[in-house]
Amino acid sequence: MNDIHSQDDQGAPLPGHRLVLGRDKPLHLDCGIDLAPVTIAYSTYGRLNAEKSNAILICHAFTADQYVAETHPVTGKPGWWEELVGPGRILDTDRYFLICSNVLGGCMGSTGPQDINPATDQPWCLNFPVITIADMVRAQVRLIDHLGIGKLFCVIGGSMGGMQALEWASRHPERVFSAVPIATAARHSSQNIAFAEVGRQAILADPDFRDGDYPMHGVQPKRGLAVARMAAHITYLSETALQRKFGRNLQGRDTITYGFGADFQVESYLRHQGSSFVDRFDANSYLYITRAMDYFDLAGDHGGSLANAFRGTKVRFCVISFTSDWLFPTYESRAIVHALNAVAANVSFVEVESDKGHDAFLLDEPEFHATLSGFLEGAAEHRGLPRKKETA
Amino acid sequence: MNDIHSQDDQGAPLPGHRLVLGRDKPLHLDCGIDLAPVTIAYSTYGRLNAEKSNAILICHAFTADQYVAETHPVTGKPGWWEELVGPGRILDTDRYFLICSNVLGGCMGSTGPQDINPATDQPWCLNFPVITIADMVRAQVRLIDHLGIGKLFCVIGGSMGGMQALEWASRHPERVFSAVPIATAARHSSQNIAFAEVGRQAILADPDFRDGDYPMHGVQPKRGLAVARMAAHITYLSETALQRKFGRNLQGRDTITYGFGADFQVESYLRHQGSSFVDRFDANSYLYITRAMDYFDLAGDHGGSLANAFRGTKVRFCVISFTSDWLFPTYESRAIVHALNAVAANVSFVEVESDKGHDAFLLDEPEFHATLSGFLEGAAEHRGLPRKKETA
Repeated sequence: MNDIHSQDDQGAPLPGHRLVLGRDKPLHLDCGIDLAPVTIAYSTYGRLNAEKSNAILICHAFTADQYVAETHPVTGKPGWWEELVGPGRILDTDRYFLICSNVLGGCMGSTGPQDINPATDQPWCLNFPVITIADMVRAQVRLIDHLGIGKLFCVIGGSMGGMQALEWASRHPERVFSAVPIATAARHSSQNIAFAEVGRQAILADPDFRDGDYPMHGVQPKRGLAVARMAAHITYLSETALQRKFGRNLQGRDTITYGFGADFQVESYLRHQGSSFVDRFDANSYLYITRAMDYFDLAGDHGGSLANAFRGTKVRFCVISFTSDWLFPTYESRAIVHALNAVAANVSFVEVESDKGHDAFLLDEPEFHATLSGFLEGAAEHRGLPRKKETA
Repeated sequence: MNDIHSQDDQGAPLPGHRLVLGRDKPLHLDCGIDLAPVTIAYSTYGRLNAEKSNAILICHAFTADQYVAETHPVTGKPGWWEELVGPGRILDTDRYFLICSNVLGGCMGSTGPQDINPATDQPWCLNFPVITIADMVRAQVRLIDHLGIGKLFCVIGGSMGGMQALEWASRHPERVFSAVPIATAARHSSQNIAFAEVGRQAILADPDFRDGDYPMHGVQPKRGLAVARMAAHITYLSETALQRKFGRNLQGRDTITYGFGADFQVESYLRHQGSSFVDRFDANSYLYITRAMDYFDLAGDHGGSLANAFRGTKVRFCVISFTSDWLFPTYESRAIVHALNAVAANVSFVEVESDKGHDAFLLDEPEFHATLSGFLEGAAEHRGLPRKKETA
């Protein structure tokens, strides 16, 4: 395993591991390009057992990264699934070997548009090839090969992470024992594409974007990226959650000011979401990753039939959705379940009652955690993995 | 009636009427400022009867205007409620006198931030006072006074127009015989404020905004305004409507291009919505009018009790919502109906089954039209207005 460190945008080393695929091992992308070199930055938790049968690949969502259960090197915040990952937790580091890699096209160490294009010795920027969810999975496959793992015990992820889990199960059923796609869909809907496009246009409208060449000009399209984040952030929460958290509460004032300041808490919150995001995320990555989601259409890749994506599969599926998720509504999960049922796959499906919206998979949602725990226990038993310590 | 014409942004005269309130008749605004002079640009259709009992005030939505049933002077498109207004139509110009004025703060002839501040001889821009829905209604009251109408037969409007209808009925119950608030709410929700704020931030982020002084620099924050419109436009449609209209259909191509062009029809559509909007709407007006909606909170104005806003009312209400409207969901209408029921008001409520989203009130939606027609017929009978011609 290659332990060269990545660097953050201040040039400080990023913690974690890196796998570098050289020119002899290019990644063949959907767009037809052979990409090399390719760096895959990843974190691991727990230990791989002797049989190499206890590996779980965690696929991160759009703006998340490989820092699942450790302090984020840029923000200093806890990992995004810290609550689920650890000794005795649902993703039990005493029992499982957990892997999470920054997606191809990302900006936390894996190769993306901010990296150097060897042909020009300049950052790729918009010359970076447009990637797909399948390309992200191709990079992950290389990592799993490198780690010597033949078959993953589980591939799990929420939102865009769920798309990757579906892609893994569909494309590499022989390498996946179980899959948990959460709060996701087998395609980006028209409304999803529309919101993604608004975000992209906000970035493109920023004059500091400089046709994507902002790194060469020492600037960043911060205002455009912040607006993109603000619009997206609304879609991650339910109307109920916003109303409960903020309602029409005023921010540090007793009355409205008859002005355009952040009179309301929800405005202040959104502005903060926008301005803090630009410190940790790259605008070009934002374009590339949203595009990858737009292009995702598992049925379209299989002659219009989602069932064909899973024909003959032996993967055990647990599909999870949340009642108040309007970005990836339950009917998108149900479409996946119907397709799996049509091919007599082993699938359980739970629509978790939650008013927290799409982000529920990142939050303390007991029914979700219980569902996930129950599924993994059952799958572990079928896989012949030892039981949980306290019950052993 | 003063027939001085307004001008569009190319300096061409705008059709319709104008009422100018001079310095002797300033408009006292919620923010405390006395605004003068104030121009109210309006259109009328049909004739006021001798008893002056057949007047219907149509309140327009956020980005609409007074061109309800005539060719729009800037876009050349038909009026936004052309389908409802005309001889023999639901808003029957043979029977009713219809009035619609451009809202205060608007950009189609009524006084707004693009007008000259008499104190500086420069456009108001961000020195224009922040207005409220109540202020918009204050201007309309002056117009109705000017037209010599004591009591309106009906005040009707969708979305922000519905807020005005509610404000009229609450503040001036003696001057309103009936009110039809459609696809609206008695307050802007947290999510509504959030989307409005995203639009404002997109405009503010555009360097051509120049702190609102863009008219003095001969520029317009077109890119920011287009992004604001794109984000807002998504909220006007339902996910189902977007999926039905556009789905994942490609725009003039057979395959995806692995690029950031408008591969998908929905992207092309949104881009067009954005770019055409900037030709007819003023960015500062966008800020002021969204802010007026944010500040609207009829319960808040009445000690936290929406029922108090309507106590003792004799106004006949017809509240209409649409099942797929997620910007102003049915439960917002239901809150209005509950408040009206609590004060034993005369109210009918219909939730129209529609998959067209918020914009359903602007579209061919037979159940909506039947509901409106039925209510107006009943109200007209109670008001002692003659029946429809063919049934007379």
